[in-house]
Amino acid sequence: MANKILVETSARHVHVTAETLEILFGKGHTLTNKKDLSQPGQFACEEKVTVKGPKGAIKASILGPTRPADQVELSLTDARTIGVANVPVRESGDIAGSGACILEGPCGSVELKEGVIAAKRHIHMTPADAAELGVSDKEIVCVKLETARPLIFDDVVVRVSDKFALAMHIDTDESNAACAFGTVYGSIVK
Amino acid sequence: MANKILVETSARHVHVTAETLEILFGKGHTLTNKKDLSQPGQFACEEKVTVKGPKGAIKASILGPTRPADQVELSLTDARTIGVANVPVRESGDIAGSGACILEGPCGSVELKEGVIAAKRHIHMTPADAAELGVSDKEIVCVKLETARPLIFDDVVVRVSDKFALAMHIDTDESNAACAFGTVYGSIVK
Repeated sequence: MANKILVETSARHVHVTAETLEILFGKGHTLTNKKDLSQPGQFACEEKVTVKGPKGAIKASILGPTRPADQVELSLTDARTIGVANVPVRESGDIAGSGACILEGPCGSVELKEGVIAAKRHIHMTPADAAELGVSDKEIVCVKLETARPLIFDDVVVRVSDKFALAMHIDTDESNAACAFGTVYGSIVK
Repeated sequence: MANKILVETSARHVHVTAETLEILFGKGHTLTNKKDLSQPGQFACEEKVTVKGPKGAIKASILGPTRPADQVELSLTDARTIGVANVPVRESGDIAGSGACILEGPCGSVELKEGVIAAKRHIHMTPADAAELGVSDKEIVCVKLETARPLIFDDVVVRVSDKFALAMHIDTDESNAACAFGTVYGSIVK
């Protein structure tokens, strides 16, 4: 396998619990799959929510399926725009002490005391991918993008699972910093 | 001299001609210096304008002094937010065929058929700095930032003038992608 990794830009999005989903969209509501994502079982939803901070609000799509905890993934530009302070750069699921916000849906709102993060850049891959690329789960690597705004991202965490598909995820700030638009590939450099 | 370059984040801003300034702020208006910038003679102004695109509007400060041409420097996140298409990554002054917008001030508005760019990352330096760092005007270098989101920016253009002071300028997308907050230094890597 060539050292050629699809680089996908994650727009701001929200993961919700089944309980939060019902508060925001009404009793018994279930998520509506709008589009399957690269990671098996993950999908963008028709449902959008408003993420409110002290200085403003922005719309974000929910990504399904529901999860054990609410989590809002913003770019640091977004966080500043709506005035949410203390948004750490974290891996998904690591939300202790992260930013606060209010989620608003058509049927109600939920106050999150924590859960707002900027996603740490990462590469999803299968064990077979990891073996072929010579990396392991949780390894930190650099990834070079030869785009119109070329750069090398350091501190990219490798995440290995047989439930994943090979793709690197960056947020919109990172994508704009690299002009990583359209179909873009990166390569691991050590 | 150590290979240690101050990395400054340029927030979105606008450069205006004397003529545009009068349309936006009234006949005879002159710019009010709010804060001197790192580059000698350049200053942030009290005057703010609204930059309008097809999908929205944002406020931006004017940077003085006035210039021979109007120029709007946005992040690509900003450009997307207000719906300005075809915003190229360019060096300051290179605006032919760049993005369009409307500038609004308290006394009037000006339609720019071009002038909206995302600034190409660059390093200002004096001839003495260039000699010590072993680089020359217009040279393209890489700059490493060892921040909370470390990375190496490629395609950084060196700009040498005895009117400059040593500083690298990146936009807010690039700054967020690197967590280049507070006083941050980078180093040239070749």
